[in-house]
Amino acid sequence: MNPKPQLLLLASLFFGGIAFSQNVNKEDSTMLRTIYNTALLEGKSYAWLDDLSNTIGGRLSGSLEAEKAVQYTKEELEKLGLDKVWLQPVMVPKWTRGIPEYAYIETAPGITSLANICALGGSVATPDGGLKAEVIEVKGIQELASLGKDKIEGKIVFYNRPMEATQIATFSAYGGCVDQRYAGAMEAAKFGAVGVIVRSMNLRKDDYPHTGSMTYGDAPENKRIPACAISTNGADYLSSALKIQPDLKFFFNQNCKVYPDVQSYNVIGEITGTEFPNKYMIVGGHLDSWDLGDGSHDDGAGCVQSMEVLQLFKKIGYKPRHSIRVVLFMNEENGLRGGNKYAEEAKLKQEEHVFALESDAGGFTPRGFSFDTDAANFEQIKTWEPLFKPYLIHYFEKGGSGADIGPLKNEKIVLAGLRPDSQRYFDYHHASNDTFDAVNKRELELGAATMASLVYLMDKYGTKTEFISIKK
Amino acid sequence: MNPKPQLLLLASLFFGGIAFSQNVNKEDSTMLRTIYNTALLEGKSYAWLDDLSNTIGGRLSGSLEAEKAVQYTKEELEKLGLDKVWLQPVMVPKWTRGIPEYAYIETAPGITSLANICALGGSVATPDGGLKAEVIEVKGIQELASLGKDKIEGKIVFYNRPMEATQIATFSAYGGCVDQRYAGAMEAAKFGAVGVIVRSMNLRKDDYPHTGSMTYGDAPENKRIPACAISTNGADYLSSALKIQPDLKFFFNQNCKVYPDVQSYNVIGEITGTEFPNKYMIVGGHLDSWDLGDGSHDDGAGCVQSMEVLQLFKKIGYKPRHSIRVVLFMNEENGLRGGNKYAEEAKLKQEEHVFALESDAGGFTPRGFSFDTDAANFEQIKTWEPLFKPYLIHYFEKGGSGADIGPLKNEKIVLAGLRPDSQRYFDYHHASNDTFDAVNKRELELGAATMASLVYLMDKYGTKTEFISIKK
Repeated sequence: MNPKPQLLLLASLFFGGIAFSQNVNKEDSTMLRTIYNTALLEGKSYAWLDDLSNTIGGRLSGSLEAEKAVQYTKEELEKLGLDKVWLQPVMVPKWTRGIPEYAYIETAPGITSLANICALGGSVATPDGGLKAEVIEVKGIQELASLGKDKIEGKIVFYNRPMEATQIATFSAYGGCVDQRYAGAMEAAKFGAVGVIVRSMNLRKDDYPHTGSMTYGDAPENKRIPACAISTNGADYLSSALKIQPDLKFFFNQNCKVYPDVQSYNVIGEITGTEFPNKYMIVGGHLDSWDLGDGSHDDGAGCVQSMEVLQLFKKIGYKPRHSIRVVLFMNEENGLRGGNKYAEEAKLKQEEHVFALESDAGGFTPRGFSFDTDAANFEQIKTWEPLFKPYLIHYFEKGGSGADIGPLKNEKIVLAGLRPDSQRYFDYHHASNDTFDAVNKRELELGAATMASLVYLMDKYGTKTEFISIKK
Repeated sequence: MNPKPQLLLLASLFFGGIAFSQNVNKEDSTMLRTIYNTALLEGKSYAWLDDLSNTIGGRLSGSLEAEKAVQYTKEELEKLGLDKVWLQPVMVPKWTRGIPEYAYIETAPGITSLANICALGGSVATPDGGLKAEVIEVKGIQELASLGKDKIEGKIVFYNRPMEATQIATFSAYGGCVDQRYAGAMEAAKFGAVGVIVRSMNLRKDDYPHTGSMTYGDAPENKRIPACAISTNGADYLSSALKIQPDLKFFFNQNCKVYPDVQSYNVIGEITGTEFPNKYMIVGGHLDSWDLGDGSHDDGAGCVQSMEVLQLFKKIGYKPRHSIRVVLFMNEENGLRGGNKYAEEAKLKQEEHVFALESDAGGFTPRGFSFDTDAANFEQIKTWEPLFKPYLIHYFEKGGSGADIGPLKNEKIVLAGLRPDSQRYFDYHHASNDTFDAVNKRELELGAATMASLVYLMDKYGTKTEFISIKK
C-alpha cells in the first residue's frame, strides 16, 4: 500500500522535476497523514454531532430546533478562532407535521389493521376527521394515464415501485423511485385521486415510514391532495391485502400545515486566504433536517464534517492560500433556499468561487468523491489518487456534487461531493431512526479527514480553471 | 465506471487475441453481474444468519449451540443439491464461562464501583469467593521486566495499552495490542502476579468487555492466574482511579472451567468439478464463535457467505471446472482444531488444494481481498480488478488470508481473505453486542457475491501454479 513509487512518477510528469516533486509529494503525504491523525485523535465532529442530534434534535426549516442549530454552530465556529463567522439571512418555508399521523387498512367495517405512515413534507392535511377511500396500486406515475380517470377518481393512489436492490449505488436506486414521492400527488390529482400513499424510499424491509419533499406544482389549493409515505413492510402488507380484497379501504389522518415564511440563516465561517483572499473554496452540508429523527446522517454529519475541515486546518496550523469557508446551508430538504441565497449573494458581491465540496450522503466510511468539473480539473484530481490510497479512498469519478452547492455552478468552479459507503444510507434517510447512535465515530472522522485532504490539495495546487484566469 | 476499455487492454495482453478476449471478458462481466444480482435478489445468507444467530446463538466449541450449528448447516447444505455434504470429525476443547463474572473497584473498605468484565477464553477461575488485590497498570508485557517482581508480586497486572486510533486498518491496531490479551497472564505470572485485567480490544469507548483467546503456555496448573477483559470505559475509569489512589483494590470473580475434549465436526459441502474433480478450491468461515453475543459478525457472516457461494453457483447453473467446497471450520476461536484437521486430512488423502478463500472479518461492505500467494498468481489476480470496479471492490493487496485456511499453505495454493470495511468490526468483536441486528443484509450479500465472483474467476482461469503443474 505504499504509494510512493506511483506518486513519484505522476509527480515528475506533472511538475517536471524529480527533486521538486519528491519534495512536494513527501509534503503532501505527510500533510494527509497529519490531517487523518488529527481527525482521529483530536477531532470535534462527533461531539458536535452529539450536541446537534441529542441536545437539539431534528431541525426542520422554520422550527425552533433549526434556530437553535444556527446559534449553536455559530458559537462553536466562533470558538475555533476563524477570521470571520457570520449569519447570512434567508427566508425559509415553514411546514409543520402537527399531531402525529395515523392510518389503518379496513377490510370490513370495524376490521382494521394499523399501518405505519408519515406525511410527506409539504403535504396538505387530510380533511377533518381523516380520509377513507378505496386504493388503487400502481408501480409508477406513467401507469396513471393507462388506468384513466374511471379507475382513479375518488380513490387513493398507492405508488409501490420499490428501490432496485441490484443497484450497487443506492443513490441510483433512489433516483429511480423518488419521482413517485416528489410528483406522485400532483399527477394523481389530475385523474381525480383523493389521496396518495407512497412506498418508503428504503431498500430494507422494516417498519419506518420515510418522509421527504413533494410538490403540488402550481395546482390550486382545492386540487391538492394529501400524501403520505408508508413503511416498506406496510407497503408489502397493503399490496398483498389488495390482491385478496381489491375493494379494501385505507384511512389516514394527517394534520400538516403551512405557515408564512420565517427568517432563518446560513451559518458561515472563514479562514481568509494568505495569497488569494478573494478566491473562495467552500465546504458545507445542510443544517436543516427532517423532523422525524434527529437528522444525524442527513445532514448533521455533513455539517460537523465541514466544520471539522476548518477546525483541522486551525489545529495543525495550515494557512490556506485561498479563503476557505464552511457553509452550513439552511433549508436543503424542502426549498433549497439557503443554497440559492448563498449563490445569489456570491454573484452579487462578485466573489469568485473556485471550489465547493458538499457532504450530504451520510456519515459512513468515506470511499471518495464525485466531481462536477471539466476534463483538465478532473485529470489533475486523478493524479492525487495515490495520496489517498493509504486511507482506502478509491472513488474519484465524474458525477453529481451536492444540492446546496449546485446553484454556484459556472464554467470555472469545481464542484465535488463526498461519497461515503451508501449501503446503509437509505435505512435511515428521512426516517425516525436517523439518529446519533446510527453514526460511527471513526467513520464520521475519516470522512472529515478525507474532505480536509481534498480541500488542502485544491488549495495548494489551485484549480485548473483558476490557473487560466490567473494567466489572463 | 465502465470498465470495458481497461478490461480489453488487459485481456489482450493476457490472452493474446482481441476477438477471444472480448468474448471472455463480456462473459466474465456478465457472469459477475448475474452473481451480484442473484445474491441481492435471491440470496439465502441473511436468512441463514438469522437462524444461526437468533435461533441457535453463540457457538462456543464444545457447546450444545455449536453442535446445533453443525446439524443446522449440514441440513441447509443438503437442501442445495450439492454433490456431497459431510461432517469431518474433529476433537475440540471445551472451556465454559460458568456463572457470569463480576468485578468491582474498591477505593476504601465497602466503597466500591462495579466494573464491566468478562473472563478471557481459556482463563482459569478465580479462587473460591473471588480474588481481591492491588493493581499495577502497565502499557505492555515489556514493562513487566523493568518493574520486576518487587512491584508485581501479589498484585493484579492491568494491561491498558489501547488500540491505535490512527491505524486506518483496524486489524493492524488489533495486532498491535492483542499480545496483552493472549500472553499477558502467562508473562505476568512469571513475576508473581495473582491476576490479570486486559483493556478490551475495542477502538470505541463503551461498556462492553471483549473476550478472546489466551494462553498459559506450558505453565503448571498452580502457576495459572485468572485473566479478564475490562470494557474500554471501565479501563479508562480504573486507570484514572489508580492515578488518584494507587493502592485501590480490584475484585473479580469468575467461574470458568475446562472439560475434556469433546467430539465435534467441520461441515463440508462440495460441487464436484467437471474438468478437475481432484483439484479443490475451498471457501469457508468458522462455525464456532465466542459465547457472549451470537457471533453474527465473527463468524456467522463468513459461514453463511461461504454457503452462499455454492448456493449462487447452483442457482445460476454454473458448473465449476474444479471441485468447489464450502468448509465451515470448527474451533477457530480457541484452538484452530478444525482448520488443522482439514489440512491434515487433505494431506493424508493427497487432495490437491489450489485455492482457499476465507471470510472472517465481519459481514460489512466488502472492499476486496488480501492474498497470500506468489508474484505470478498475484499478477493474474490484479488483471481482474476492472471486473470488480462496478461493485466498488478496489482492494487487492498481498497480506494475510485466514486462520482456518492457513494450515493448507504450501508453494502451490493461493490463499485469500475477504476484506470488508473494518471500521466497525472491533466495536462488536468477541463481545455481547456481536448480534444479528449489527449485520446489514445488503452488506452481507455483497460480500458473498464478491467471494463468489473471485471463486468463479479462479475456477475459470485456474491458478498460475496449477498451470505449471498441469504442464508437467
